[in-house]
Amino acid sequence: MANRDIRIILAGPRGKMGTAARDLIAHTAHFQLVAYLDSKTTDETGFTDEERPVYTDAARCFSEVETDVFLDLTTPEAAKINLETALDHHVRPVIGTTGFTDEEIARLRDKTEEKGLGTMIVPNFAIGAVLMMKFSQMAARYFDDVEIIERHHDNKLDAPSGTALKTADLISEERVAKNQGHPNEAETLDGARGGQVDGMPIHSVRLPGLVAHQEVIFGGSGQTLTIRHDSIDRGSFMPGVKLAVETVMSVKTLVYGLEQIVE
Amino acid sequence: MANRDIRIILAGPRGKMGTAARDLIAHTAHFQLVAYLDSKTTDETGFTDEERPVYTDAARCFSEVETDVFLDLTTPEAAKINLETALDHHVRPVIGTTGFTDEEIARLRDKTEEKGLGTMIVPNFAIGAVLMMKFSQMAARYFDDVEIIERHHDNKLDAPSGTALKTADLISEERVAKNQGHPNEAETLDGARGGQVDGMPIHSVRLPGLVAHQEVIFGGSGQTLTIRHDSIDRGSFMPGVKLAVETVMSVKTLVYGLEQIVE
Amino acid sequence: MANRDIRIILAGPRGKMGTAARDLIAHTAHFQLVAYLDSKTTDETGFTDEERPVYTDAARCFSEVETDVFLDLTTPEAAKINLETALDHHVRPVIGTTGFTDEEIARLRDKTEEKGLGTMIVPNFAIGAVLMMKFSQMAARYFDDVEIIERHHDNKLDAPSGTALKTADLISEERVAKNQGHPNEAETLDGARGGQVDGMPIHSVRLPGLVAHQEVIFGGSGQTLTIRHDSIDRGSFMPGVKLAVETVMSVKTLVYGLEQIVE
Amino acid sequence: MANRDIRIILAGPRGKMGTAARDLIAHTAHFQLVAYLDSKTTDETGFTDEERPVYTDAARCFSEVETDVFLDLTTPEAAKINLETALDHHVRPVIGTTGFTDEEIARLRDKTEEKGLGTMIVPNFAIGAVLMMKFSQMAARYFDDVEIIERHHDNKLDAPSGTALKTADLISEERVAKNQGHPNEAETLDGARGGQVDGMPIHSVRLPGLVAHQEVIFGGSGQTLTIRHDSIDRGSFMPGVKLAVETVMSVKTLVYGLEQIVE
Repeated sequence: MANRDIRIILAGPRGKMGTAARDLIAHTAHFQLVAYLDSKTTDETGFTDEERPVYTDAARCFSEVETDVFLDLTTPEAAKINLETALDHHVRPVIGTTGFTDEEIARLRDKTEEKGLGTMIVPNFAIGAVLMMKFSQMAARYFDDVEIIERHHDNKLDAPSGTALKTADLISEERVAKNQGHPNEAETLDGARGGQVDGMPIHSVRLPGLVAHQEVIFGGSGQTLTIRHDSIDRGSFMPGVKLAVETVMSVKTLVYGLEQIVE
Repeated sequence: MANRDIRIILAGPRGKMGTAARDLIAHTAHFQLVAYLDSKTTDETGFTDEERPVYTDAARCFSEVETDVFLDLTTPEAAKINLETALDHHVRPVIGTTGFTDEEIARLRDKTEEKGLGTMIVPNFAIGAVLMMKFSQMAARYFDDVEIIERHHDNKLDAPSGTALKTADLISEERVAKNQGHPNEAETLDGARGGQVDGMPIHSVRLPGLVAHQEVIFGGSGQTLTIRHDSIDRGSFMPGVKLAVETVMSVKTLVYGLEQIVE
Repeated sequence: MANRDIRIILAGPRGKMGTAARDLIAHTAHFQLVAYLDSKTTDETGFTDEERPVYTDAARCFSEVETDVFLDLTTPEAAKINLETALDHHVRPVIGTTGFTDEEIARLRDKTEEKGLGTMIVPNFAIGAVLMMKFSQMAARYFDDVEIIERHHDNKLDAPSGTALKTADLISEERVAKNQGHPNEAETLDGARGGQVDGMPIHSVRLPGLVAHQEVIFGGSGQTLTIRHDSIDRGSFMPGVKLAVETVMSVKTLVYGLEQIVE
Repeated sequence: MANRDIRIILAGPRGKMGTAARDLIAHTAHFQLVAYLDSKTTDETGFTDEERPVYTDAARCFSEVETDVFLDLTTPEAAKINLETALDHHVRPVIGTTGFTDEEIARLRDKTEEKGLGTMIVPNFAIGAVLMMKFSQMAARYFDDVEIIERHHDNKLDAPSGTALKTADLISEERVAKNQGHPNEAETLDGARGGQVDGMPIHSVRLPGLVAHQEVIFGGSGQTLTIRHDSIDRGSFMPGVKLAVETVMSVKTLVYGLEQIVE
């Protein structure tokens, strides 16, 4: 193994994200896959046609296989437990999940720093979406008026999307709350002006033929600035996974969200 | 005057539309401006630096000046009266206004046909917008799912726009009413899914820096078809005015809306 | 079998299009799949887990299985031959391919009409794309200035796309050839103003993350009208296949292209 | 005058930019217009209906009127000279022009720092355009593939636009030069793939009905990120003028371009 290769244990290799991650690792010269953690398998003799060992138990996996990074793309519940086991075995975790409380984050940050390691918790690996949110927050310093239009396939159950709400929150950190539009505006059809977050409208479009899209439109005198992200498939998450794996090797703390490291 | 020249009396020459129309007539080889009707002026000695006569009284104007077409870009109230006066003097009216009832339209059509003339009543001269509506109605035969996003400057008082509502009505004529989106969809922020016309959502964006824009998005399995009109200024109405003036010369009935003649 | 059911023999059932077509037929109440033609298979005992017969020879297939429509989604070479065999057996062909000369089309139209049948030859089943082209041709009657931007994934080998060129041809039928842009325009970077078809620019964008997209932008004084089609996967072809199968049952001639029947 | 008011002398008050700037100053509570510099006027008795003094000579103006900032919206030639005169009189210049060499910039920076003042040279006051360029440069760190589409009215003489070329340069600072698209790509229509800057295509659209628009599209596996600026009129420059005037009060050096101060 070359000095600069990053050795990776992958948890959740059979899900959509896991399948894409296996592909990413195979095509990244300085990444090396050393083992799988696959708690639901009963067959440890091998994964598909590859020769890497497959473990069902995290602790045993970390004890037997030397690694740099533990990449967990399973469920929030499993990932939370695996993350701590990895740190206990002096392995840097990269966790693609949400659902941690502020207290949990603080405690895990302390633990990470005690170990002198890095930990990445990444609710959204789509670097394009992360950049869209970061740019939107930056633009909000110069434009008071903004609306968000998010578009998804019509199988989506919730409206607005989590990304739209998070974008609005990030914008609100920079923007003075303001009821946009004309003060005497009349909405003659309920809902036409969208849902409001601090006076900032969000519009949710749901149509067959769409996948996952969002545009954030800032308006000022004589101009508009639009930031748009279009996502077609899970492949869109892989550049973010790559960035997280590379970053966890150099930081000595817990990083929550790719937006902390893109610059 | 050449045989094929169309002689025009223009009412409302000092408004935004009127100013643009004067420019249109001056730059159209086969159009000839023969007089102004300007009921609010007190100075009949001439309009700006031009030599055309200016009248304050419609009947006197039509009696004294031979013309083919009467183009009225004034208010709905004035235009209604002027239209009948024109027909009485055997002049073809082109009226750019809304606010006629179905009964009024029927009566005026009878009167127009009795006179053996043409009459054009055009609520929207923006040919791009008219085409957008026509194409939307055609597309609705092949796509069941559609959403409308209209965007205007934040001085606009009403939401949705009249054009959006008219587009939805035209689509409804072709589309079986259907509640779009997932049946179990949850709108966690009131209004996010827009205003509904027969289960078809309309979203209204209001921002400084916008002028007048609308997109109609049709979604089907694996594809979307989008028809979009962007209007920047009143100049966008002039190709429609030209088409209406040319058309009124050849028809022998009342035509309501450019959508009846674009094909 | 119900009276109104349309019986279909499908050729090319294992390709991407064929797979989507099998799904379409299965989910369309009045469509009934009666046999497969699969010239490359050596196993006529059945296709996947279905019970329909599989034939390798077209003539034998049409002799043994009673059908209304023959839907061929194979290669241009195979489809050309199969089409005639179908007509000879009094079966209506729906062929999804290009590459017929004008003479071939004329001869096949004669043959179709002699048989008192319908034939559909459909180079592009994506109804959204067909509507985009039709609307573009219609809009060209009212706007002299137009540019086409087509966007595809960066594995596409040719630029511009066939659809862009066909759109330009259809527009050219309505539009007087005109060198657009300012007469003294200077292109300081070769190619910036795109490729020219009768003075109408076409721009080809190739990026990972794109699939197949085209927008046609008409510009006039103060306004633009944009018609855009976004295609994500082969599912986008199925509404067009459905329309073609339904149409071939009622026409008594050869129809070339869906644009002839959408209205 | 309140303590925090910024006193401004405005050069070029009768141009489009100057007219917009007068409006900006009038509507900004902490800005105070104290004099005009208008070298082409012969009438120093006053500007339009206002009471501020009008000067034709810069040196005399700075000697007689106490001010904080000198805002010059005239020509590059005049601005270069006025800038130095302002610094000599210990007045902070804000210059909205291009055409300085690197040597000139360096010398003026030295002079500015010697005086202990700030100087702003701003080639583009449109803050939306500046943000578009800054975001594009940031995104280029995460996406290797990008194309630029800029759209302008068809009276524009040059293609590509200066903004498009500057955006490409800024992206090139972050992006390894790369010939995008498929290596075996065939351009069957010359120019379809646009103009190339370091293998990055730029496409220039020119249509009536457009004003000034640019979109920068980054593509990665399964996703695209688009940053778009639409400018309708000179009003779009005013937020940038405001930011520059405010910034010049606090910096002690020469700042070239708003992109240095937006963050």
